Amino acid sequence: MNNLLSQVNFIKEIDKLKYIQRKTKLFNSDRCENDAEHSWHLAMMTIVLAEHANKPINVLKVLKMVLIHDIVEIDAGDTFLYDTTKSHTNTEQEFLAAQRIFGLLPAEQAEEFIAIWLEFEDGITEEAKFARSMDRFEPLLQNTSNDGGTWKEYNVKYQQVYDKKVVIKNGSESIWKFAENLLEESVEKGILEK
Amino acid sequence: MNNLLSQVNFIKEIDKLKYIQRKTKLFNSDRCENDAEHSWHLAMMTIVLAEHANKPINVLKVLKMVLIHDIVEIDAGDTFLYDTTKSHTNTEQEFLAAQRIFGLLPAEQAEEFIAIWLEFEDGITEEAKFARSMDRFEPLLQNTSNDGGTWKEYNVKYQQVYDKKVVIKNGSESIWKFAENLLEESVEKGILEK
Repeated sequence: MNNLLSQVNFIKEIDKLKYIQRKTKLFNSDRCENDAEHSWHLAMMTIVLAEHANKPINVLKVLKMVLIHDIVEIDAGDTFLYDTTKSHTNTEQEFLAAQRIFGLLPAEQAEEFIAIWLEFEDGITEEAKFARSMDRFEPLLQNTSNDGGTWKEYNVKYQQVYDKKVVIKNGSESIWKFAENLLEESVEKGILEK
Repeated sequence: MNNLLSQVNFIKEIDKLKYIQRKTKLFNSDRCENDAEHSWHLAMMTIVLAEHANKPINVLKVLKMVLIHDIVEIDAGDTFLYDTTKSHTNTEQEFLAAQRIFGLLPAEQAEEFIAIWLEFEDGITEEAKFARSMDRFEPLLQNTSNDGGTWKEYNVKYQQVYDKKVVIKNGSESIWKFAENLLEESVEKGILEK
């Protein structure tokens, strides 16, 4: 019963993820996506696209990763992928956030969640590689459905996008091939500048 | 590659879940929750609370259920739990929605998703019972954090709430005990009328 009380406090706290706005807009929309919506979409993508992983993956582990990967942003905020003035890896602020928020859970569960979050951030295991592919693939689909979306809005060029998106390949060669075609098409359509 | 194209079309289509407004408000808020946020929150609750299930459950199966359970509402809309004028089970409209939306996926995957959705709706397996417990427990937590929330707003009384929430017991006796206490406390605080 003590476990349950801590768990409910955590469940209430993470509601705040619904207020963290991303830069990327919803599909065919000018409304920003929030982190909870984004996390749900990555979870759906994981279930639907798991068969395309380069190597067999533990789908439950990947789901846990994508569901919790942005929770630290409740304290640390969202960093735009193409913001070159900010660090994108494991900042001190994010680590403190993980300790505070996951620390609301019973000790054993807190440790498990922090470990899963770090595994995602490190991007070394097959599960982390696939989870990170999903995280990079969703905004690419959004921007192509939004006539260039944040690429146009923030004047991001083809090579910058390519360099960030090529990590999709680490999780799935076939999804990367699909993504690469989308980038080429975007250039042809004039919604992404070379 | 043909699979991937159908899957991406499905992934784009389900973005619409982010526009389906529920009656229930976010925690400590007057902003309505949407179905994508709700589905993410149930997935988090599933991971966190699985240990309280009455019988061992396949967590991956429950996650799939809660992630997809409201997708039919893209076509069929949200029905308020205490609306006595509308059917809450498996309407024809929902079944057509399931066929149309899950039907965007490759055939085998479409069949799997429809089967999982029906399993959730039927509420007979241990996984479905637990998933349905999560679905009933989240708005209870939201309403208690919102000084009565939709109970007050729509003049819903203790017995009506009790009758809808008691199914939590089918998934987890211990979560139901916790929920029952919350209902009693809500009456004492004057945010739920007996």
